[in-house]
Amino acid sequence: MSENSLASVLKESGNTVELLRNSKIGMYVYPVVAPEFSNWREEQRAWRDSAVLFDQSHHMDELIVEGPDAAAFLESLSINSFANFGLNRAKHYVPVSPSGHVIGDVIAFREREDKFILVGRAPTCNWVKYNGTLGKFNVSIVHDPRSPSRPDGKEVTRVHYRFQIQGPNAPKIFERMNGGPIPDIKFFHVDWINVGGRKVQALRHGMAGAPGLEIWGPYEEKDEIRDAILKAAEGLDLYQVGARAYSTNTLESGWIPSPLPAIYTHPDMQGYREWLPAAGYEATGSIGGSYVSDNIEDYYVTPFELGYDFYIKYDHDFIGRSALEAMQGKTHRKKVTFEWNAEDVMKVIASNFVPGGDNYKWIDFPQPNYASTSADMVMHDGKMVGMSMFNGYSFNERCMLSLGIVDADIQEGDVLTLVWGEPNGGSGKTSTERHKQAEIRVRVSPTPYAREARENYAESWRTKGS
Amino acid sequence: MSENSLASVLKESGNTVELLRNSKIGMYVYPVVAPEFSNWREEQRAWRDSAVLFDQSHHMDELIVEGPDAAAFLESLSINSFANFGLNRAKHYVPVSPSGHVIGDVIAFREREDKFILVGRAPTCNWVKYNGTLGKFNVSIVHDPRSPSRPDGKEVTRVHYRFQIQGPNAPKIFERMNGGPIPDIKFFHVDWINVGGRKVQALRHGMAGAPGLEIWGPYEEKDEIRDAILKAAEGLDLYQVGARAYSTNTLESGWIPSPLPAIYTHPDMQGYREWLPAAGYEATGSIGGSYVSDNIEDYYVTPFELGYDFYIKYDHDFIGRSALEAMQGKTHRKKVTFEWNAEDVMKVIASNFVPGGDNYKWIDFPQPNYASTSADMVMHDGKMVGMSMFNGYSFNERCMLSLGIVDADIQEGDVLTLVWGEPNGGSGKTSTERHKQAEIRVRVSPTPYAREARENYAESWRTKGS
Repeated sequence: MSENSLASVLKESGNTVELLRNSKIGMYVYPVVAPEFSNWREEQRAWRDSAVLFDQSHHMDELIVEGPDAAAFLESLSINSFANFGLNRAKHYVPVSPSGHVIGDVIAFREREDKFILVGRAPTCNWVKYNGTLGKFNVSIVHDPRSPSRPDGKEVTRVHYRFQIQGPNAPKIFERMNGGPIPDIKFFHVDWINVGGRKVQALRHGMAGAPGLEIWGPYEEKDEIRDAILKAAEGLDLYQVGARAYSTNTLESGWIPSPLPAIYTHPDMQGYREWLPAAGYEATGSIGGSYVSDNIEDYYVTPFELGYDFYIKYDHDFIGRSALEAMQGKTHRKKVTFEWNAEDVMKVIASNFVPGGDNYKWIDFPQPNYASTSADMVMHDGKMVGMSMFNGYSFNERCMLSLGIVDADIQEGDVLTLVWGEPNGGSGKTSTERHKQAEIRVRVSPTPYAREARENYAESWRTKGS
Repeated sequence: MSENSLASVLKESGNTVELLRNSKIGMYVYPVVAPEFSNWREEQRAWRDSAVLFDQSHHMDELIVEGPDAAAFLESLSINSFANFGLNRAKHYVPVSPSGHVIGDVIAFREREDKFILVGRAPTCNWVKYNGTLGKFNVSIVHDPRSPSRPDGKEVTRVHYRFQIQGPNAPKIFERMNGGPIPDIKFFHVDWINVGGRKVQALRHGMAGAPGLEIWGPYEEKDEIRDAILKAAEGLDLYQVGARAYSTNTLESGWIPSPLPAIYTHPDMQGYREWLPAAGYEATGSIGGSYVSDNIEDYYVTPFELGYDFYIKYDHDFIGRSALEAMQGKTHRKKVTFEWNAEDVMKVIASNFVPGGDNYKWIDFPQPNYASTSADMVMHDGKMVGMSMFNGYSFNERCMLSLGIVDADIQEGDVLTLVWGEPNGGSGKTSTERHKQAEIRVRVSPTPYAREARENYAESWRTKGS
């Protein structure tokens, strides 16, 4: 076993939870992009009221998978079927462990019959890359890891730039960019549009009904393309979104970016753990939050729990298939949005204005997550009934929200208790100060967090006492 | 008059206050350096409890002034005397306008008889540079402007790196860096020390009694020097300070970094305004805050008001001398620290947790300034008695603090009212969201903000109701 592998790090540590809860890697940041272009409140408001430009060029890994077996190879690792994965389409691609737990997720683009691009966090890219080395499929793989977290003035380059444009004014901007109506691209399909004299690939996506496009191309054309977008958008209130607002977008759209990769325990993955480096995401990515189990598997989640069960297709063989088949029809935890009680949030903040230091964990706005993976206990009658996994403040909702999972019998509207902060004054992570734990009431709400829910019951409760 | 000059911009605008209050330049940021290395609360705590490494390589302009007349030239623009400005010393150098108002301030280092390096914000560097072009003195000037605010992955270089090391553990770190005791450098004197096999220049400075050193050298040696410092500091709890915590250090040490340069009105400075560009600091630097006067001169401050009167020496002729002589012995406003009432701060924050949008101006932590120059009204009995000029949250003090000036008859301990936020829903600056104005009680405290004051009277008041 290499001394520089995840396997050796795990063996030396003896306790994976303790290892990851005390990682010194620091904040999981959205690198290179400026923290703010205007200010994060207005940047959040713009994705609902006008239009936003997300620069996604830097925070995700990219994996280019090519070869005659590319489709068969990728499908062998995926809960998704490739039966309807035509050219110029994209999929939300989810690999699971042999035990049926989520390793991660990426967006997979099919550029050619024999060429795919995977874009997302490291765990999925690493897992696919490793499997490519096993020689079972005829594929070649190129990995472009995300940009450094603290480039410190050094030049940063990527293979591709990647922009998203969203919001109610986006269609007008697309038409101007394209110099005429754009093709009617179906959801998660790809077509070509014009941007400033160049033809670029565009993926149709969108959140909450508003159409959006993601475009990409050679990184060296990035500035030219951005300038063309900004020029086309003149007068249409397009806001460039900085790193501080960016990661909070998912609170409103309901995707959980950071499940712990379920790769630490299954015996069939020992080869993978020996292959993974001692300095990579899996060995250094941190776990933060009030939930401390002695079993790392308690942090794993299934596709059923994340709401990805409708992706699962048993028309192909894949790693984890039999485990998922055994889970089928059982009772599963479910994904929800937790809406945080304003009065309790104020209590936490106010504790940081009392000299003497007996403070609750600072809630950093708009993005208080302090680890690569967050796991906060959500309680009911003294029993843990859920786990909060990604949090943030929405200026649109004037509310702290988090995404997570709850037991099947928890209902929308239930008021539960989130335990905020880590026990025993906090872990050894560099990303948090010493603190005590607080209880914050949270109301279970739908995912994506819906205007209806807000208007029907949430408002009076949220504003109580504030 | 060039169309690309400050003078033409001012003429076109017709209202300088309105021009600067509505600048679209965005936040005044501390560029390139990572927002956080660990977390900003711990980084603040470290400068009081252990030791910090400030990376000052990027946020300041540098001006290298050389030539047989260098000393005479610089002294002709400065309230400071150069009589005792020996080799290897530094001065807090302050030029004023012909009306005796502060243009800015820098640290001036004398490297040789005929060579000085000025380090600080743009206004002083621009003013000195301009005067160098007038041909009255035999000097040559090289200007290295600060790094771009949003480098976006492009390479950034400077002439010099610049680090500061401060805190109670700093002396032990210096000794280890140097490989033995360092020379006994007097305050604001420069000597040479060893760092990782290189000889580097070190300025002795310090805040609140704790010794500190500022070291600099060729930018290409930056990484090597930083690594040597970090290695020397192992086990001594040295924290690298990120951009978010950095600018709040001055709240505890009492220096106001951002007075408005007093260059917009005096007729003798029309040539300067024609020389200054339309895209520079003076034309685009923003004014933010509740204080709106129709006269830009109301934002000017004097050396007396900033506590720099002890620098003024009439042993030489300098621009503004006669104006200062006329001010001598008069009653002046004075610099103070405003300690913000926690209950009122909470009221402002809580308004951002009420759906519907009738929010007070967001207080962004730890650095809520939203302009190049801040000017918030400080009131007593409905009358403006002061101006808050730079604010921030101190985790050490568990308190919002700001620096500013008050009328001479205001006493320490007085409770005044700071008007937080801009009138009419906010200006046209991109750095702020729409908001309404709030009143925040502030207690007048000494500058630098003293532990004694805190312990003797502040504590009970600050915690009231929180």
